[in-house]
Amino acid sequence: MELLKKTILEKGIVLSDSILKVDSFINHQVNPVLMREIGKEFKKLFSHVKITKVLTAESSGIAPALMTALEFGVDLIFARKRQSLTLKDDLLTAEVFSFTKQEVTTLTVSRQHIDRSDVVLLIDDFLANGEVAGGLVKVSEQVGAKIAGFGFVIEKTFQKGRAMLEKTGIAIESLARISSLANGKITFID
Amino acid sequence: MELLKKTILEKGIVLSDSILKVDSFINHQVNPVLMREIGKEFKKLFSHVKITKVLTAESSGIAPALMTALEFGVDLIFARKRQSLTLKDDLLTAEVFSFTKQEVTTLTVSRQHIDRSDVVLLIDDFLANGEVAGGLVKVSEQVGAKIAGFGFVIEKTFQKGRAMLEKTGIAIESLARISSLANGKITFID
Repeated sequence: MELLKKTILEKGIVLSDSILKVDSFINHQVNPVLMREIGKEFKKLFSHVKITKVLTAESSGIAPALMTALEFGVDLIFARKRQSLTLKDDLLTAEVFSFTKQEVTTLTVSRQHIDRSDVVLLIDDFLANGEVAGGLVKVSEQVGAKIAGFGFVIEKTFQKGRAMLEKTGIAIESLARISSLANGKITFID
Repeated sequence: MELLKKTILEKGIVLSDSILKVDSFINHQVNPVLMREIGKEFKKLFSHVKITKVLTAESSGIAPALMTALEFGVDLIFARKRQSLTLKDDLLTAEVFSFTKQEVTTLTVSRQHIDRSDVVLLIDDFLANGEVAGGLVKVSEQVGAKIAGFGFVIEKTFQKGRAMLEKTGIAIESLARISSLANGKITFID
């Protein structure tokens, strides 16, 4: 997606060989026009599938997932990482270990909103080691929902997320694929 | 806002005299069409102000704030409650005590994205005791940004948030104002 790649080159900041900071337009400050275009792009890429729900995890996944859900005309569910006052019973959970943060987070989704009739599109801002996506798969599997695809805004192809998710046989689409952040330089593949 | 009130009556669940569960359409599962209409409504209510940034807090504020930012054609900033790997330097912070959760959270915003030239619209899903809104005001004041208004999706008028925020003299708009949840019944005022 050209607009996205252009924005990454202009505004992304390489913090290390593995960390790209995109907090001026994706995951702290958010450009809503870019998000709307991202939603349209995911709709185009998965237009052949009859999606019933978009699923993501708080917080950075919410903006691209919301715009994608709007395009598909379906509801979005964001899995909680923090405890919620009203999300207490009938919960689906998956423990997720973050390599980057070196901590375990529990993803929580209410069983009220997803069931075996659902066809789910998983959306997230980054595909790196695939921990969060893997957790969302586990949550979906607990109720027998079908996962139609994975959509990531940015993929770091030098980390192991794609290899892990490819084992599921589910389609993976990333809007910008970064093969290297070495020497402070952002290199895309495609 | 009629569509919102109708949805609250149909899908909101009264958990106690003070807690309304709206997690099937606002803060866990999210209805993107409703969010788009909410964004349009806030645009209408604050159309006389030249907003430069929409500010909210993760996670439930992100969806309505994103749609509002899209309508205004400006960026959204969501304050972090959890630590972020890339949000480390040059931070504006405000400690917020949550009466409902009985815990202190630190709201964090990067100084990179907000300054004294900004005219900020604060958006959140709920106005209850006003803790989060108060924290966002503190963050904005640290850089001398002007706050143009507060926009809440749902206000619980029987809690003390509005009285607290009115002291700032800043305009407050809530799209649905609930005066009571007593006996499991949702009562709106207008």
